[in-house]
Amino acid sequence: MLTNDFQKGELIYEGKAKKVFSVSGGSAQLDLTKAVWVEYKNDLTAFNAQKKGSFVGKGALNKKMTLMLYEHLEKKGQNTHLLGNLDDTSLLCRKLRIVPVEVVVRRLAAGSLSKRLGLAEGLQLKRPVVELYYKSDVLGDPLINEDVAMVLNWATAQELEVMKQKALEICKLVAEVFFRAGIELVDMKLEFGANEQGKVYLADEITPDTCRLWDLESKQKLDKDIFRLDLGDIALAYQEVSKRLEKSLL
Amino acid sequence: MLTNDFQKGELIYEGKAKKVFSVSGGSAQLDLTKAVWVEYKNDLTAFNAQKKGSFVGKGALNKKMTLMLYEHLEKKGQNTHLLGNLDDTSLLCRKLRIVPVEVVVRRLAAGSLSKRLGLAEGLQLKRPVVELYYKSDVLGDPLINEDVAMVLNWATAQELEVMKQKALEICKLVAEVFFRAGIELVDMKLEFGANEQGKVYLADEITPDTCRLWDLESKQKLDKDIFRLDLGDIALAYQEVSKRLEKSLL
Repeated sequence: MLTNDFQKGELIYEGKAKKVFSVSGGSAQLDLTKAVWVEYKNDLTAFNAQKKGSFVGKGALNKKMTLMLYEHLEKKGQNTHLLGNLDDTSLLCRKLRIVPVEVVVRRLAAGSLSKRLGLAEGLQLKRPVVELYYKSDVLGDPLINEDVAMVLNWATAQELEVMKQKALEICKLVAEVFFRAGIELVDMKLEFGANEQGKVYLADEITPDTCRLWDLESKQKLDKDIFRLDLGDIALAYQEVSKRLEKSLL
Repeated sequence: MLTNDFQKGELIYEGKAKKVFSVSGGSAQLDLTKAVWVEYKNDLTAFNAQKKGSFVGKGALNKKMTLMLYEHLEKKGQNTHLLGNLDDTSLLCRKLRIVPVEVVVRRLAAGSLSKRLGLAEGLQLKRPVVELYYKSDVLGDPLINEDVAMVLNWATAQELEVMKQKALEICKLVAEVFFRAGIELVDMKLEFGANEQGKVYLADEITPDTCRLWDLESKQKLDKDIFRLDLGDIALAYQEVSKRLEKSLL
């Protein structure tokens, strides 16, 4: 439905990996006051932005992977912020109030969970676990729990319930897609937002920036850990994931 | 009911602040295979035992405060591991399987919560919040959530539900006692254990080692933070808390 007659408006917000603009124009019958232009950057950050990098084409790859996965999730009945494609690096998305609570779903132990709890990296958890983190660059996205999120008014009990439930459903759907692509989804970080009526949508992105992805056979890392840990050519890995994802979703 | 004809048996476990022994003798009709001799040490540790200290009389004070508070909690209908008094530094307690999940109840922001979430020390929370920590000296008692505790088999859903509920009830009862003693209960750490039938009891201790306690008027600290932060005479503070507690519970 979307054509390329939309115009990028003013910058509303700049995050570590994306810029959010207002949007105007467009022939579609769409209330653009309720939409935003989300542009994917080539920047890479790790360790709470203490380590910085970038590679040409990263924004386009992450946009493409998010578009494919969010279209798939919509088909499977999930509510996402995706409204349509804009250009090589940009998506048209619903304008939402982002809930400042990141939902991490873990299928295998890795990263901070392994470190914090002394669990071997790659340990298969008997079922996926959900962790909540407070979305705060200043504080380094600290681990929290539901009780704290409610008492500090970051989210309502109902929002948290929906977010946790949806995160598990989405993780299952995305893990299946990756499995068909020969990739193990180790863990993923999801963000949610609510519209003016309080309806909760999956927001943000699903990419190798926000998921741990290991080759099913070789266990080779195909995600941002390559950048975090200086393990090799990150551009090649992201291209590989995108290519396999495209095939898996055909 | 308890006399001093019990004998201390072999050392079963030594923690940072207490030693646990088997127990024999005693004229009471009590199955002593289901009891332990808990001896309170004079040792003080902080920052996961990286800082060490002690003062003469600390074990006796902490034993006395725990005895007073646990007797009060039993009167109020709470199930605790307390069976009776043994000597100046020791209590007779139920032998339990300690659940390796510490329950922290916070009424005001302080300590690690303040630091982690950037909250001013002393910020009044709109209701008490519960946090769970994995009881592990090696890992430094990391913050966890219920989902992780269940998946890693540290506690069952039912145990966690009882522990959280009881922790809030106990916090309310103990805060009232301290309030009458002119002391604000800021936060407290509770440990629970289960008997062979799976019944959950409050275990461990309630002392200035495991609670943050501030003078209601002056806001002066009367707890282990004095030792953590080198704020003054810790022995005097513990004596003061014990004295005021005794008066409050008369």
